[in-house]
Amino acid sequence: MTTQQLLQQIQLKKSFLCIGLDVDVNKIPKHLLNSEDPIFEFNKAIIDATHDLCVSYKPNIAFYEAYGIKGWQSLQKTIQYLNTNYPGQFTIADAKRGDIGNTSSMYAKAFFEDLQFDSVTVAPYMGKDSVEPFLAFEDKHTIMLALTSNEGAFDFQTLETNGKELYKQVLETSKTWKNSENLMYVVGATKAEYFTEIRKIVPDSFLLVPGVGAQGGSLQEVCKYGMNANVGLLINSSRAIIYASNGEDFAQKAREEAEKLQLEMEKILTI
Amino acid sequence: MTTQQLLQQIQLKKSFLCIGLDVDVNKIPKHLLNSEDPIFEFNKAIIDATHDLCVSYKPNIAFYEAYGIKGWQSLQKTIQYLNTNYPGQFTIADAKRGDIGNTSSMYAKAFFEDLQFDSVTVAPYMGKDSVEPFLAFEDKHTIMLALTSNEGAFDFQTLETNGKELYKQVLETSKTWKNSENLMYVVGATKAEYFTEIRKIVPDSFLLVPGVGAQGGSLQEVCKYGMNANVGLLINSSRAIIYASNGEDFAQKAREEAEKLQLEMEKILTI
Repeated sequence: MTTQQLLQQIQLKKSFLCIGLDVDVNKIPKHLLNSEDPIFEFNKAIIDATHDLCVSYKPNIAFYEAYGIKGWQSLQKTIQYLNTNYPGQFTIADAKRGDIGNTSSMYAKAFFEDLQFDSVTVAPYMGKDSVEPFLAFEDKHTIMLALTSNEGAFDFQTLETNGKELYKQVLETSKTWKNSENLMYVVGATKAEYFTEIRKIVPDSFLLVPGVGAQGGSLQEVCKYGMNANVGLLINSSRAIIYASNGEDFAQKAREEAEKLQLEMEKILTI
Repeated sequence: MTTQQLLQQIQLKKSFLCIGLDVDVNKIPKHLLNSEDPIFEFNKAIIDATHDLCVSYKPNIAFYEAYGIKGWQSLQKTIQYLNTNYPGQFTIADAKRGDIGNTSSMYAKAFFEDLQFDSVTVAPYMGKDSVEPFLAFEDKHTIMLALTSNEGAFDFQTLETNGKELYKQVLETSKTWKNSENLMYVVGATKAEYFTEIRKIVPDSFLLVPGVGAQGGSLQEVCKYGMNANVGLLINSSRAIIYASNGEDFAQKAREEAEKLQLEMEKILTI
């Protein structure tokens, strides 16, 4: 999917919502546990109930790997279900990978070719040759960590390097890499005031923003400082939507939570 | 496995060699491709031929994920084969994971509980709460990236922060984390002169050292600057050993390459 197609979906649906599929078997409704593949059944119901309110789904790969081969099967079925039934959705493998060149190539193959995701999240610590193998894929997107929404973000990401914070250096350096137009960035919503500075460095890039909802970030604030002329934001919400209820009405309740965010987004988009 | 048990294995075998299982189907001997699980058959043959010469095996998870469910099955069979037949081997899941707390917990569960690895490699960019969930596992080890062996290591790892390079700050900060005694560190062999500085910060920790062989690092140099009273080094070699031949003699040739390194190590250990 191209960035232009993503923008068209945003305009069509009046939403820039990404729903995070961080599916923990211990948190899903009990009645699903008797099915052959509870994680997939849960995802399928959530997707069917919310697809018109969001433009993106983001399976968090850890939650699938934790169940070994069974988890990997649930992941494969989920992405196939999305690609077959809702090809307009921008799919994100939230994997935060990054390794030396030939290894990163294998991760890129795993998520772009084998699983057919539109994008994958990566970590910047190993630098250029750990990220460029992902960028080499046409019409695929690589979403690099810049400033994350967790407490540990302040351990290293905000350290001063060459007179600027590390995450700013990461943003600047990444712009010099080959095919850097395929980059998007993870920027946590818990730090809305940082968006002004970030937009000076990457005015045109899409930013994937976790931390709205369960982690406490404000949608209004993020949009105020982070939005650009082409929207340029994907706001992720995971737990607040998918675990809105753990009863038989879980999909309906998830829809209601997604709709609240979509309506807020519609207001922001039509100002 | 405890660090003490690892040290006993090193003394017993007169080796601190780790063999990296970066298994690419396009590089393994053609005659294996007819078997049901070529990757596992390759690993099994390599392990059987080299187990008395090394103390550790390190499957590179990307190479398994690239083949989806089939790859994950090969990985599972490989770690089970190791744990069943060679329980003295220190097993490393080279995964370079790292995410917010609840996600890192799921990755830890995947590698420590589901797959039963002794250790996993992690990336430091997201800080304390992305690593501590791994450290919480008793008798398991978390091997954090400090200074890697690739070209991109110089993009961020060696930037000056607070008057010292970022990788030194990473080492220092990590020592303050809960259960930090379960930490080891990745330090690339291509930069042997850095080991002196690193040993000032982490004199007692084990260091996993990639980059000897294919990437050009020197074993002698690394040991000169990096070894401590308890050895404190695991030297990894992947391609130079496992792809020593792609004929029917591949396991024997792998053994010969491993033996060269083991004999060099024996000399160093008995000085």
